[in-house]
Amino acid sequence: MNITAQTLTEMERRYRANLINSIGGFKSLVLVGTKSLEGRENLALFSSLFHLGADPALCGIIIRPQEIVENTRGNILNTKVYTINHVHPGIYQQAHQCSAKYAAGVSEFEATGLTPIFKEGIEAPFVAESKISFACKMVEEIPIKHNRTTLVIGQIFWMEIPDACLKEDGFIDIEQAGSITCSGLDSYHTTHRINRLPYAKVKKEGL
Amino acid sequence: MNITAQTLTEMERRYRANLINSIGGFKSLVLVGTKSLEGRENLALFSSLFHLGADPALCGIIIRPQEIVENTRGNILNTKVYTINHVHPGIYQQAHQCSAKYAAGVSEFEATGLTPIFKEGIEAPFVAESKISFACKMVEEIPIKHNRTTLVIGQIFWMEIPDACLKEDGFIDIEQAGSITCSGLDSYHTTHRINRLPYAKVKKEGL
Repeated sequence: MNITAQTLTEMERRYRANLINSIGGFKSLVLVGTKSLEGRENLALFSSLFHLGADPALCGIIIRPQEIVENTRGNILNTKVYTINHVHPGIYQQAHQCSAKYAAGVSEFEATGLTPIFKEGIEAPFVAESKISFACKMVEEIPIKHNRTTLVIGQIFWMEIPDACLKEDGFIDIEQAGSITCSGLDSYHTTHRINRLPYAKVKKEGL
Repeated sequence: MNITAQTLTEMERRYRANLINSIGGFKSLVLVGTKSLEGRENLALFSSLFHLGADPALCGIIIRPQEIVENTRGNILNTKVYTINHVHPGIYQQAHQCSAKYAAGVSEFEATGLTPIFKEGIEAPFVAESKISFACKMVEEIPIKHNRTTLVIGQIFWMEIPDACLKEDGFIDIEQAGSITCSGLDSYHTTHRINRLPYAKVKKEGL
């Protein structure tokens, strides 16, 4: 099937949303935990997390202009701190449910049954059920002109990883920890490692 | 294992690279094809692609300041067009090899044995072996101050998807197409669908 710019423009809105959300490949699937200045907890599902750099340790998330994630954006702007929590098969349905449009006063933790926990010195809630979690301090907010989304850049300052999943060379075996991936707007997937490959070097005869 | 900001700072460089590249979860794995103004083809492996919006259809990639991907950046800035090609188990070793630091004049297609093909009216090479490919026009380039990377935003204007993988609602079954995901700097994974979930709605009793 071949799809052109003209077809894209004329497409039904929901069909296009499914299509364009699928075409980019598998995505990181994480729950972002925040707290308002008034102390209200918020939890939102994100699939736009990407690696920005290792030194300093930076990652980015894209926040859409809709109200549902505006809570996350507002809390991050106000408190500068947020947690990122991996999703595993035991909590993927609750994670998905965090995308429902709850009223501003409702905590997604309470609504979905996920458990907030706090770590010393970190003012945002973690998800107790997650196996891998980390905390970020917002260092930059960049508005994306083309569609009113916002890129939030965070510096990682705290991590929790199961001992057995942290390998000798610093690689985290997130598959062993049960972390899952997603595609499109609603499809959840476990993974199966093919291989880890050695650092790629130029060889005289190509491969 | 608990890792703090202090530990992160003192970590050996390669160890930290593995760690921070793993912590963000599974990633999109794609080959980005470009052509220089002089007609030289370039192919680079990216794991930073993220969805930005469906209308207009936008995605972002992060380009690091190193020379190896500078070719991609230069070509995109000069020609404004690039292709994005999914990776499957049959080509993941060749895809990985595209990360080797080939000299500026060397085409990664030639070096790895992947096959460039062109589509009418699109001035960048596609990967013939990929099952899912799409083409983008660069619409914005945003420098990230914190680490000299660049966010390149592209508008999707062309797609090719196997008929059997495009579902009635616009969802692309990228797992069925054999698309794989990656974690860390060097780990490749196939996927297994758990489920597609219905659109999340607020319920009276939470879940």
